[in-house]
Amino acid sequence: MRTGYREVKQALLARLRAGEWPAGTLMPGEVQLAKEFGCARVTVNRAIQELADEGIVLRRRRRGTEVLGDRARQARLTLHQARQQVESQGRHYGYRCLSQRKLNAGAGLARRLAVPQGSPLRALRCLHLANGRPFQLETRWISLSAVPEAAAQDYADQPPGEWLMRAKPLSEAEHRIQAAAARPPEAARLQIAPGAPVFVLKRRTWWRGEPVTWARLLHPGEDYELIVRDGY
Amino acid sequence: MRTGYREVKQALLARLRAGEWPAGTLMPGEVQLAKEFGCARVTVNRAIQELADEGIVLRRRRRGTEVLGDRARQARLTLHQARQQVESQGRHYGYRCLSQRKLNAGAGLARRLAVPQGSPLRALRCLHLANGRPFQLETRWISLSAVPEAAAQDYADQPPGEWLMRAKPLSEAEHRIQAAAARPPEAARLQIAPGAPVFVLKRRTWWRGEPVTWARLLHPGEDYELIVRDGY
Repeated sequence: MRTGYREVKQALLARLRAGEWPAGTLMPGEVQLAKEFGCARVTVNRAIQELADEGIVLRRRRRGTEVLGDRARQARLTLHQARQQVESQGRHYGYRCLSQRKLNAGAGLARRLAVPQGSPLRALRCLHLANGRPFQLETRWISLSAVPEAAAQDYADQPPGEWLMRAKPLSEAEHRIQAAAARPPEAARLQIAPGAPVFVLKRRTWWRGEPVTWARLLHPGEDYELIVRDGY
Repeated sequence: MRTGYREVKQALLARLRAGEWPAGTLMPGEVQLAKEFGCARVTVNRAIQELADEGIVLRRRRRGTEVLGDRARQARLTLHQARQQVESQGRHYGYRCLSQRKLNAGAGLARRLAVPQGSPLRALRCLHLANGRPFQLETRWISLSAVPEAAAQDYADQPPGEWLMRAKPLSEAEHRIQAAAARPPEAARLQIAPGAPVFVLKRRTWWRGEPVTWARLLHPGEDYELIVRDGY
């Protein structure tokens, strides 16, 4: 079996935690590490890029990969289900399933979810409401290879995120947060003007390396605020 | 001395960690806690609201405050200096200080920074560049009560965030992330169209309860992505 970037990353993390490369030092070069792990340089590169994204190392042009240690502050980010977010603000939560169907992953979806092309997926579009107004527009795909029981599930009255939390544990999650301009169909669903700012959260999860779900969660901009605190 | 919401929050956290109220149970009501701590109900309310914002408890209408335990997933969010973010993408970092001055906090700034009205502040506006293009527009106030040495500091060549990281430790930070529409003067600075989406990060820090700085960091939308991973 070929050594994947996840294995390389875990191995690098273990060595970083063991203090092999203390904060402020440079890690060995990618060519050397690739030789040591018996894998392609691009595999090492991807592993190191994730360490850099997470603030564990810093890639510097022409200088190499510097170990940051705890110089970069890390804060805890809590991501709740829409229902929790709405209810914790004392508002009434509402839910509407706009569409639910099965399909096989085309090239774009296969790449996005990191599943083989043609893989069976459950595709969902849902609207979460706060006091009757659009709070979050959710577009989600669930991999039926990872969660076969999602094939027969009816999400008409039950948000897929809440169902997944109970049905399938997750071992890894990745969130990407952006500000974007609402596309016309999204704007209509969110009852905002086309081009108005939206808060975009893209969430991917895995279970022991297997992709489980990919969700794109849109909130009307300026109404929505993600709060993160650290240091307590 | 009156019991502040920070003390109440710390006391509640200690009891939550000690397992006094296990996950899934309800915490005592605010009136009861206020009596116990000998403080105002609004003080307890604010402490519990922060616990709710952090995903530790969930306030439910008419039901009370439910302890969430580890049901809500927490991810690590790493916030780097602009220079680190730009360089880690292999781009050239650039910095321009647009203005730096001293002023005394008016009512609005005093409220925002939680300092007394009239407090001396250092006010800064800076632009961080990636390959010569605007990457981040920073508006920052530093409390000179907390960091008197900032009064004489020249930030013409040195980003205030980097200076602060060395000059003043921080014990707490709060980040608020939003999507917004660029106001005309901001849009001009960021070289984007007025009304285009911007990623807004508002960051406040404290040192042992004393406000240190308040920064509003703007990124051109869609170009900027905040990545958060958990579960490793």
